[in-house]
Amino acid sequence: MRVLYFVLLLLFFQSIPAQEKSGEFVDLTYSFSEESVYWVTAKEFKLEEVAKGKTDQGFYYSANNFSTAEHGGTHIDAPIHFADGAQTVDQIPLENLIGDAVKIDVSDKALKDPDYLISPKVIMDWEQEHGPIPDGGIVLLQTGFGQYYPDASKYLGTDKRGPEAVKQLHFPGLSVEAAEWLVTNRKIKAVGIDTASIDFGQSQNFATHVALMTQNIPAFENVANLDQLPETGFTVIALPIKIKGGSGGPLRIIAIK
Amino acid sequence: MRVLYFVLLLLFFQSIPAQEKSGEFVDLTYSFSEESVYWVTAKEFKLEEVAKGKTDQGFYYSANNFSTAEHGGTHIDAPIHFADGAQTVDQIPLENLIGDAVKIDVSDKALKDPDYLISPKVIMDWEQEHGPIPDGGIVLLQTGFGQYYPDASKYLGTDKRGPEAVKQLHFPGLSVEAAEWLVTNRKIKAVGIDTASIDFGQSQNFATHVALMTQNIPAFENVANLDQLPETGFTVIALPIKIKGGSGGPLRIIAIK
Repeated sequence: MRVLYFVLLLLFFQSIPAQEKSGEFVDLTYSFSEESVYWVTAKEFKLEEVAKGKTDQGFYYSANNFSTAEHGGTHIDAPIHFADGAQTVDQIPLENLIGDAVKIDVSDKALKDPDYLISPKVIMDWEQEHGPIPDGGIVLLQTGFGQYYPDASKYLGTDKRGPEAVKQLHFPGLSVEAAEWLVTNRKIKAVGIDTASIDFGQSQNFATHVALMTQNIPAFENVANLDQLPETGFTVIALPIKIKGGSGGPLRIIAIK
Repeated sequence: MRVLYFVLLLLFFQSIPAQEKSGEFVDLTYSFSEESVYWVTAKEFKLEEVAKGKTDQGFYYSANNFSTAEHGGTHIDAPIHFADGAQTVDQIPLENLIGDAVKIDVSDKALKDPDYLISPKVIMDWEQEHGPIPDGGIVLLQTGFGQYYPDASKYLGTDKRGPEAVKQLHFPGLSVEAAEWLVTNRKIKAVGIDTASIDFGQSQNFATHVALMTQNIPAFENVANLDQLPETGFTVIALPIKIKGGSGGPLRIIAIK
């Protein structure tokens, strides 16, 4: 059905002059470095230089190794991250990682309240203004916290690390009620957010993750540059590292607007 | 409104007649695991389980750490890998990683000669049959060696590892003359191959890498499933992990045909 839809669209757009087909890429990905923001208990990104410079054979050569938690920087939570038996990162169909997207901007409220939760009403109000979230849509949530990245004290609410820092996490998120509303009433492929977690910082039970991921809906976290996107009318392409059995991993996510 | 913006995705298809495309995704990426093929001297992929199962708080949780060389499995060589001052992996423009692509299939010859080199004549002969490589094209080279992955003894020519194994590497590649012909006569964005290196296994000086990368042309290596692609009429989207200053890294590469 999706393929048929696509073919019909292709045929339809044959008649559109080439000059109207102008799209701009927006990279929604932070680069990985020792500055990348990680969960306070997660292993941070580390790059280890293997070679850099001219070799004895005469050619230049640069190479590195790296290590990281799956969940840090701009990354994907595969459904299995919080749902037993759900899709691992290598099992997520490509069709679910690419498609029409919308942005719901709650930064006005979230920047005033680091424990802000996006309610179902916020989404319904957004739809009143912009129309319904399309079937197969990817929903990006802009809290405004992206402007703080990578300053952990502002972005996460703490620059402390370790298990003791968990209770000091303060950043906005998607309420479980809104996640359940989306799962029940809309057919979305994925959700993304410009914070470290789709659940808010003070979550104890990660119920938003559970609500989405039991339905095989992955989450994109620490998504960059959402302020450069319109509310509707753009496409997202989100391609994660393909780790066999992985619960997630570094994600390269871009938009075409 | 959302339909209108499908135009942006269709930017990818602008030079291709609609009737040749089905909108089908092909994943050109091998999954990362302990079986992934790495250069004989490179640090292999390792996944370390952090959590898997029901937590004390009652929810299911799975998470891992991993470590790897930048160059192994399906990955990108950023231009700086073999060219001082050239683009690092985070600096490659998205426009250079997405676009119209062609496949040059030399498997008939390469499967009979593991030291086979793709010559300029092979490319020119291909163009005689299929038309010129388009400006901004991504060139994928099918040697047929993908069928051996991840059996290192067949895929690399050796299942030994370490510096001593380098001289035992036997797999086909792109000749330096063909790389220079492409750089001089065509405007290509990137080159991909279904072997471990764009240079053939017996290369001593990696001159093909140098010829491409001094022109800021990246290479995709260990590309999967090239046998599922036509010779022309498809789009490639190749999104690498965005490592700050990286010389390359794991790549998620897909085609839309």
